[in-house]
Amino acid sequence: MRLRVAGLAHKLNNPENTQVFEFSITAQSGRARTGLFSTPHGAVQTPLFMPVGTQGSVKGISPRELKEIGSQIILGNTYHLLLRPGPERVRALGGLHRFAAYDGPWLTDSGGFQVMSLGDLRKISEQGVTFRSHLNGDLIELTPEYSILVQEALGADIIMAFDECPPYPATPDYLRASIERTLRWLERCLKAKTRPDQALFAIAQGGTDLALRKASAEATVAFDTPGLAIGGLAVGEPKEGMYPAVALSTQLLPEHKPRYLMGVGHPEDLVASVALGVDMFDCVYPTRTGRFGYALVPEGRLNLKLTRYLDDPRPIDPECDCYACTHYSRAYLSHLVRAEEMLAPRMISLHNLRYLHRLMESARAAIRSGDYGEFAKDFAGKRFGHAI
Amino acid sequence: MRLRVAGLAHKLNNPENTQVFEFSITAQSGRARTGLFSTPHGAVQTPLFMPVGTQGSVKGISPRELKEIGSQIILGNTYHLLLRPGPERVRALGGLHRFAAYDGPWLTDSGGFQVMSLGDLRKISEQGVTFRSHLNGDLIELTPEYSILVQEALGADIIMAFDECPPYPATPDYLRASIERTLRWLERCLKAKTRPDQALFAIAQGGTDLALRKASAEATVAFDTPGLAIGGLAVGEPKEGMYPAVALSTQLLPEHKPRYLMGVGHPEDLVASVALGVDMFDCVYPTRTGRFGYALVPEGRLNLKLTRYLDDPRPIDPECDCYACTHYSRAYLSHLVRAEEMLAPRMISLHNLRYLHRLMESARAAIRSGDYGEFAKDFAGKRFGHAI
Ligand SMILES: [Zn+2]
Ligand SMILES: [Zn+2]
Repeated sequence: MRLRVAGLAHKLNNPENTQVFEFSITAQSGRARTGLFSTPHGAVQTPLFMPVGTQGSVKGISPRELKEIGSQIILGNTYHLLLRPGPERVRALGGLHRFAAYDGPWLTDSGGFQVMSLGDLRKISEQGVTFRSHLNGDLIELTPEYSILVQEALGADIIMAFDECPPYPATPDYLRASIERTLRWLERCLKAKTRPDQALFAIAQGGTDLALRKASAEATVAFDTPGLAIGGLAVGEPKEGMYPAVALSTQLLPEHKPRYLMGVGHPEDLVASVALGVDMFDCVYPTRTGRFGYALVPEGRLNLKLTRYLDDPRPIDPECDCYACTHYSRAYLSHLVRAEEMLAPRMISLHNLRYLHRLMESARAAIRSGDYGEFAKDFAGKRFGHAI
Repeated sequence: MRLRVAGLAHKLNNPENTQVFEFSITAQSGRARTGLFSTPHGAVQTPLFMPVGTQGSVKGISPRELKEIGSQIILGNTYHLLLRPGPERVRALGGLHRFAAYDGPWLTDSGGFQVMSLGDLRKISEQGVTFRSHLNGDLIELTPEYSILVQEALGADIIMAFDECPPYPATPDYLRASIERTLRWLERCLKAKTRPDQALFAIAQGGTDLALRKASAEATVAFDTPGLAIGGLAVGEPKEGMYPAVALSTQLLPEHKPRYLMGVGHPEDLVASVALGVDMFDCVYPTRTGRFGYALVPEGRLNLKLTRYLDDPRPIDPECDCYACTHYSRAYLSHLVRAEEMLAPRMISLHNLRYLHRLMESARAAIRSGDYGEFAKDFAGKRFGHAI
């Protein structure tokens, strides 16, 4: 599979402090690995899960709580923050770190995924994506250059290349064209970048087409960015399509750079993808499902709206050390869900995030002790015990 | 003014541990006083403001935060908790202290105020109030005996007599009849009470009719309950009607018992009522107005929905030590309000509660130093400075 991307300049004026953005692998178990990635706002241990603060706030959770539950990087959405409160406002108020009072590392996405999802409200061209704001109908053009400008104003430690994320399913021709365009846009992003205290991660695409995945990964790796993302997955494709694409991607991405699988947050996908060598994840799943009254547990999830929990004096998970589990019964949380009390989504979201952070902590410990396979088997045993 | 309440038994089997429920006045300044009231879950300093946890949760605020901002007693609503999750469920789960994980003192109201407010959904008789649940239409009869039974199951430290709170305006005949009924109901409440670890507070009524206020207060005082409430105010009457009623009530209520002005929570009413000798307050105002985006400040309140705050880097109140004020700008909170982020009502409610707690802390300090009048003048100067 050959891409028509002749003439791309790989060695660009792409300032970043490579001394700060250092990734070192600290242990390996099979293809799974633990690492340490340093940023201007502190080092983080991988593999890790990033809570999503769409509009500059992880829904219902304070920065103090994020630190307490072991969050390491928070993700902000460029699309949402561009529309409201606007990048210049965030910059004037000290960037996301100061504005949202979370002084640990941040990552911003490029806005690409959200604008692509706008359907009839957006038009893609070589220049970029023209779209109408879902808030007030304003016509806005998001280009690679403008995405970088916005992300520089927001001031995250890790910023993402502006890519075209094709929907699932997409024809091979569409996939190939979007990969080629994504590479041209990557070149423009790198040219536009000016801040040395931000690391730009490139994004490889290709859907579930393995030949295109390979072509995209190889062409993307050539740009030598300090980290790489696997994009275009978790967009509705079957799991049988996703895992081979992840497995191939992690084989092709450089060993000594962090690998970020975008938009993935189901516990079983985290455990499986870490086994394939993924280092970073993000997803709204834990907070969104928490707002719907679902609490993550090793066996799956509890639907706290069910009558059976109204008299259950046990915590969500007796093994969990979060505030919700050390203070509240399922009965109380179940009451709060029914009574539509704000404390319910707050506490269940907190627990769900802590669950994923604990899962990644256990994964790191298992990798360090060299038996990640055993850990994954235990996880699956609890989760799918009846089926094994 | 004479009430037709001959034959009321004042010396009833009304078990409570008077050694535990002790009220001592620690300082006075004019009619304002500071006191210490002890309960089975700790002593509290008066004057104080009680956050309202309607359904067993102060909306959006955790028990840890309640303690941090200086909350001393939390109020639970018998009407709401009776309907959901039900008193037997709360009892089985360890009472409100354990159920809601707040181990400091609790107070429950009697449910009377809420059921009276149901309009066409309720019918009052000598026996009690029959009403339809606003949740599922169930027909329920709340009587003095049943209110006490429910409040014993909920397990608060202070429980309230089941009273009839007349609407404003009400005719003198209606007021007088409801005062007489409230006294007969008080006798029944005291007869029904069995738990020695709960203190029952009686409630004096009388609307803004000073002769009826006097008659009600004197007849209520005769029951010698460990605390007394001033009920039937803050129900829509003009301030010119409320203050004389409060002033007369505090003159008639015993010096050495706590005085609780129900449903009052506006800062200026707290400052004025403390001057008149009130010790306790409760109101949903700080949390409700917080959910609407209003933040309490010495000058009044900030409407954080206004455009002018979108670029304001200052905290809500630079003097405030709450989490919101020590971490966030008005700009960020204003953004969260517009973006309908859960963190907005949570943080503004937290600040508003802390504001009222700080106000009562300052009031106590002013009383101890003997110059409450000066404190009240300073408060009014900041608040109404332009008009003074
Ligand atoms: Zn938990
Ligand atoms: Zn504050």
